[in-house]
Amino acid sequence: MLVQKYKDMLSGKSVIRQLSEFAAARGAEIGYENVFDYSLGNPSVPAPRDFTDRMIHLLATREPVELHGYSPSLGITQVREAVAVSLEKRFGIPYRKEHIFMTSGAAGALAHAIRLVAQPGDEILTFAPFFPEYHPYVDLTGAVLRVVPPDTERFQINFEAFEELLGEKTAAILINTPNNPSGVVYSTATLERLTNILRKKQKEYGHEIYLISDEPYREIVFEGEDAPCVSWFYDNTIMCYSFSKSLSLPGERIGYVAVSPKCRDAETMIQMCGQISRGIGHNCPPSIIQLAVAQVLEETADLKVYENNRNILYKELTDIGFTCVKPGGTFYIFPKALEEDAGAFCQKALKYDLVLVPGDTFGAPGYFRMAYCMETEKVQRSLPALRRFAAEEYGYPKRG
Amino acid sequence: MLVQKYKDMLSGKSVIRQLSEFAAARGAEIGYENVFDYSLGNPSVPAPRDFTDRMIHLLATREPVELHGYSPSLGITQVREAVAVSLEKRFGIPYRKEHIFMTSGAAGALAHAIRLVAQPGDEILTFAPFFPEYHPYVDLTGAVLRVVPPDTERFQINFEAFEELLGEKTAAILINTPNNPSGVVYSTATLERLTNILRKKQKEYGHEIYLISDEPYREIVFEGEDAPCVSWFYDNTIMCYSFSKSLSLPGERIGYVAVSPKCRDAETMIQMCGQISRGIGHNCPPSIIQLAVAQVLEETADLKVYENNRNILYKELTDIGFTCVKPGGTFYIFPKALEEDAGAFCQKALKYDLVLVPGDTFGAPGYFRMAYCMETEKVQRSLPALRRFAAEEYGYPKRG
Repeated sequence: MLVQKYKDMLSGKSVIRQLSEFAAARGAEIGYENVFDYSLGNPSVPAPRDFTDRMIHLLATREPVELHGYSPSLGITQVREAVAVSLEKRFGIPYRKEHIFMTSGAAGALAHAIRLVAQPGDEILTFAPFFPEYHPYVDLTGAVLRVVPPDTERFQINFEAFEELLGEKTAAILINTPNNPSGVVYSTATLERLTNILRKKQKEYGHEIYLISDEPYREIVFEGEDAPCVSWFYDNTIMCYSFSKSLSLPGERIGYVAVSPKCRDAETMIQMCGQISRGIGHNCPPSIIQLAVAQVLEETADLKVYENNRNILYKELTDIGFTCVKPGGTFYIFPKALEEDAGAFCQKALKYDLVLVPGDTFGAPGYFRMAYCMETEKVQRSLPALRRFAAEEYGYPKRG
Repeated sequence: MLVQKYKDMLSGKSVIRQLSEFAAARGAEIGYENVFDYSLGNPSVPAPRDFTDRMIHLLATREPVELHGYSPSLGITQVREAVAVSLEKRFGIPYRKEHIFMTSGAAGALAHAIRLVAQPGDEILTFAPFFPEYHPYVDLTGAVLRVVPPDTERFQINFEAFEELLGEKTAAILINTPNNPSGVVYSTATLERLTNILRKKQKEYGHEIYLISDEPYREIVFEGEDAPCVSWFYDNTIMCYSFSKSLSLPGERIGYVAVSPKCRDAETMIQMCGQISRGIGHNCPPSIIQLAVAQVLEETADLKVYENNRNILYKELTDIGFTCVKPGGTFYIFPKALEEDAGAFCQKALKYDLVLVPGDTFGAPGYFRMAYCMETEKVQRSLPALRRFAAEEYGYPKRG
């Protein structure tokens, strides 16, 4: 018989998916350039030219049997070394290849990180607003994901609620900074307070509480932002990285787990990733992508467009009268909807060809997400629609 | 705390891995060309030139944002379509894209296929000799892998033993033809008898028994061999394919699940694969590899070398006096060791720089595997060592 839990998941259709289907259908009618599709977090800037050149060079010069051969189960040795060297240079933490496990994107990294430390009966805490795919990542291991309600003032951490949920069963805390969907970056003060609590509770409970740090947006941080490295603050940190956003390679599925060298049993944990992999059929990310990415570790796509878009949208939204925390990174912004029911709000926006995602999906009802990874010209063209929508449906901006 | 089951797996060091480490170390001493390393199943012929050309063409001509963009969770639509068309043409079975799920190699395919139909409490049966990675694939889902002892006469199926193990709890049968490690191809008679039993037992138990067909060696079949398509025989068949061997791309991690169009709920099963994927962090195989492979579906690497090697080795082994079933495909041969303890036998072979793998690993003690994916010239150079080993250690060939 088919396994019911997967069958059941089919009925819960993704809101984001439905919205992007709407956008595609509407695009077919009026031209996709006229649909202001803020629903999907796909990078809109090309991968660095250098990545393409390195790929072509590998294909043109390397002997195919070697180039396309099996990667060792933890990743290609020189690729792991290059990642470790780059991380050490960047963050001053003495990573070695023994702390690096290459994965198929952040999804692969999180699937391994969670299995390292959590099993049925355990709890993993995360903070709203949060990436909804955390649910299947955690739920299908048999552990439970518990969501700490948001700090709606600043989208940092609601510490009161956090300390209420933290308990003996907490195996790990899963954070995402810069954050999808809020665009907010956790400050030094936030990370200090969080990790002080974790250190205290580790002692109290007599077992490790791991900090799983999901960092696909690490390289998209805007000017003047305090964006510290999570691994600086806490020894038992498992960094999960993806090159999807920094190099604009979401389809090529490449990332890594980097366990802090100060983490207890760090090297064993990386070895364990190889074993987890055997069970979930992960094996390795593709050899050629590993080799090419290792040659462009210090590069990114041209990410400036996201900051420009943030500036334009943040100004317009606040001018109109939206309540909105200013994003410090990513390509998301997460304003308060103009009515309590963000689902109804986003439904009305469709009339203006504005595709927005209700915050309910991210554990923050009453808010909505805009993914502004698109050409700046299109963001600008969307502003009149945004203004009309707020004015006609809600009478914004309100007169003083 | 770290999850103990993965930690425990670290102590069980792979015999194949240890042997290939020996081969590498010995190679550093005397030159790897002088070590007759029959331990590893890595393709030895290059990927088709056309694959390289298509990759370069994609990189040189396609807009990067589109080329490297997210693949839909079931695989790129036109790639799934191309696979379905190619399968229909090849096997006359009306596959449609709705029956195809793109995976990261056969490992990814098996991880999904097993999760579709098995959960804790269920049993999956496989036939010795078998690929040892079936254990983690099945064990880590909570289901149990039960191994049917080998038919040592022909390495087809030991039906008596099979019918004893088949029961109410059997959720699926996992077969691998052409087989690693025996090199044997299941005949029409074997598959007819197997599937007749399954049909009878499905009725008797009142639930489906799925046939999971692991087919990475499908394209490596030697002349004159009866090598029928498994999906012809049984409606509830889940085909798991990989391009690793046929296109010599093991490191690029590309394959698929193809559920038979006649399988009950076939399209639902493919949709379910997308949900399983969310939990194990699989997402999709890399976009560029999907696109390139879809353009060379009708091609293979030049696989003739494996048949030549089979001919040379089979002749030499039987001349020496080994008992040996003639392989019909793959690049493996699985003779009987010249003493009862195949581990001891393979240990002695190392003195002659012959790296052989004991059959215990594959559930067939007393046998050993030779992976003859190497240049024919090297196979030929290994023959004197093989002769000396058999003569000096065991007095083969026997006189009279």
